[in-house]
Amino acid sequence: MVFKFHEEKKGKIEIKPKVNICNNKNLCLAYTPGVAEISKVLAKNPNLAYKYTIKGNSVAIVTDGSAVLGLGNIGPYPAIPVMEGKSVIFKNYANIDAFPVCLNTQDPDEIVKIVENISPIFGGINLEDISAPNCFEVERKLKKSLDIPIFHDDQHGTAIVVLAGLINALKLVDKKFENIKVVISGSGAAGIAILKLLHAKGVRKIVMLDSRGVISEKRKDLPKHKKELFKIIDKDSSDFGVKEAFNRADVLIGVSKGGVVKAHDIKAMNQDPIVLALANPIPEIMPEIAKKAGAKIIATGRSDYPNQLNNALVFPGFFRGLLDTREKNITQKMKINAAHALAGVTIKPTINNIIASIFNKKVVPAIAQAVRKSVK
Amino acid sequence: MVFKFHEEKKGKIEIKPKVNICNNKNLCLAYTPGVAEISKVLAKNPNLAYKYTIKGNSVAIVTDGSAVLGLGNIGPYPAIPVMEGKSVIFKNYANIDAFPVCLNTQDPDEIVKIVENISPIFGGINLEDISAPNCFEVERKLKKSLDIPIFHDDQHGTAIVVLAGLINALKLVDKKFENIKVVISGSGAAGIAILKLLHAKGVRKIVMLDSRGVISEKRKDLPKHKKELFKIIDKDSSDFGVKEAFNRADVLIGVSKGGVVKAHDIKAMNQDPIVLALANPIPEIMPEIAKKAGAKIIATGRSDYPNQLNNALVFPGFFRGLLDTREKNITQKMKINAAHALAGVTIKPTINNIIASIFNKKVVPAIAQAVRKSVK
Repeated sequence: MVFKFHEEKKGKIEIKPKVNICNNKNLCLAYTPGVAEISKVLAKNPNLAYKYTIKGNSVAIVTDGSAVLGLGNIGPYPAIPVMEGKSVIFKNYANIDAFPVCLNTQDPDEIVKIVENISPIFGGINLEDISAPNCFEVERKLKKSLDIPIFHDDQHGTAIVVLAGLINALKLVDKKFENIKVVISGSGAAGIAILKLLHAKGVRKIVMLDSRGVISEKRKDLPKHKKELFKIIDKDSSDFGVKEAFNRADVLIGVSKGGVVKAHDIKAMNQDPIVLALANPIPEIMPEIAKKAGAKIIATGRSDYPNQLNNALVFPGFFRGLLDTREKNITQKMKINAAHALAGVTIKPTINNIIASIFNKKVVPAIAQAVRKSVK
Repeated sequence: MVFKFHEEKKGKIEIKPKVNICNNKNLCLAYTPGVAEISKVLAKNPNLAYKYTIKGNSVAIVTDGSAVLGLGNIGPYPAIPVMEGKSVIFKNYANIDAFPVCLNTQDPDEIVKIVENISPIFGGINLEDISAPNCFEVERKLKKSLDIPIFHDDQHGTAIVVLAGLINALKLVDKKFENIKVVISGSGAAGIAILKLLHAKGVRKIVMLDSRGVISEKRKDLPKHKKELFKIIDKDSSDFGVKEAFNRADVLIGVSKGGVVKAHDIKAMNQDPIVLALANPIPEIMPEIAKKAGAKIIATGRSDYPNQLNNALVFPGFFRGLLDTREKNITQKMKINAAHALAGVTIKPTINNIIASIFNKKVVPAIAQAVRKSVK
């Protein structure tokens, strides 16, 4: 089925004219000699590319194929169909022209150099499926060198959709961000971005797990980018084993891998546990098992269970807002506002409906509006 | 007019879905989780990108903005509207998805590195408006390192359209390639490619001019890539001044700049002079002046005179043939065949109609077919 779907049209996107060149007059306007007038103007003021070219509406979806979906480091070719799918979503939901840039290199400095050099035609850069810690370095350097917004979707898109889900879930169990204890299972790009955004939102008790246990100052095996997290994770964490981590936790956020969370972990949690088990395609704990173990609200990344937290809910509207304002600075405040806007689309959340569907036509305008309003 | 045309739609191309993702089933096929099946298959066999992604139909239009139209080295931003125009032509005439890659660097090694690294999604590379001699180095290195066709349009597209025009023009004056004397005014990328293709076609008396005079072994100021031409230009050239160059020449090909050829140059030519004055927007000699000086057949690059020799006649069909066959080796024989195919579209050439119009729907299929047939 999926093979036929992809083979039939040989790819999911095409590059189409918006202008008609059926006669000589139009051809002379769109191409030589007419276009030379536009080129001359752009030679004096490159910024007018926003006025006369696709720059203002175009996004590069940049990947090095090092962390494609949940499939790991499988390179640029397997990334192509994923990025094409993303391009389809960009256009369909937010009318953004997004082109896949699937790179044959995984060297962060080379990636930075390439993106800098291909950037003139783009109004924004969506980094995608680049593994940690390279993704942090690439993002940081590009934010510094380019004057267009840089958004690593696996980090920030995921963090925003998680926060949106959590805003509505906490309403349902009548708890507040300031008081909850959160366990994040997974300390890759997504986990770290979630940690930072929840901290910015006021959560103070966050325990983070990686494949070797609780992240704390006691660990001697941690890379630099994980050590930097000490200042915002729960100080008490250093005394925790994995078992204590779950003890009286209000929220579990899973961005690690299928099956790593067990029923007894859920049973150890506080009253009305919220379980966001987002590993794809197999969640950290299957909804049926989590429910039986006492979870009150369960969300996954899957479309065949209730409460799908998919970052496709976020990136189209978020980039729409960025492109509309030509804003390059993406702040935590902007992300929090976007999360509230997304949560707000679901006026009366219920246990099986904490988040709007990706097909809800109010989602993209709400997020875009929140981003635009966040720009002073 | 041209400003309104470009401002109205903010660019001339868009990136559109070829698939419908209006429901969850299709979204799951086009994006996660379904697309993972395609990714897994591509991880094992990247070559299947031709089957399941846009690779087989996509071309990168790569420029460094160093020789944009006749405007010179004006950088990547002014190149954007030109490359968008080219993309429109690619799609409209040959149904090829071509994306502009307008680079912020003019270092040939960097250009090579970038193109190598962004190549996975492309089925072909159209180098464009890159100045000589960098364009030769970039082309040579990419041909070596990549397994997709590399075609520098300013060289080979121009050479093919010139040869096509000349095939029909020579018929009209009843002369043969083996016997004619040709003067090429201009020794940039286009001039050199024309020289080589005419030589491959059997022309033996070719004199080449640059801005300082006749190219010959006597010149001590020539860069390496021009010295390499000695072996195929007319040996007698070394005794020529510019004046002698035109003496009894049958054909003048101008790919230099406006106004450099004078009436007395045309008057010095052989019987029935053929003048292809292709500098844009001002030809080497205006058709009215050339005619008055005795030119029998006159062609320009302009759409407002008869006999427009525009490489837009060539690149759509040529790439169509390359993509259809997945051939990476572009040979002189292939180019000559393409030129004959283009010339052949005009069944009964006349003095004011040596070449088909770009709107003639037979042009692209004829050239594509010639390329396909050239591939063994």
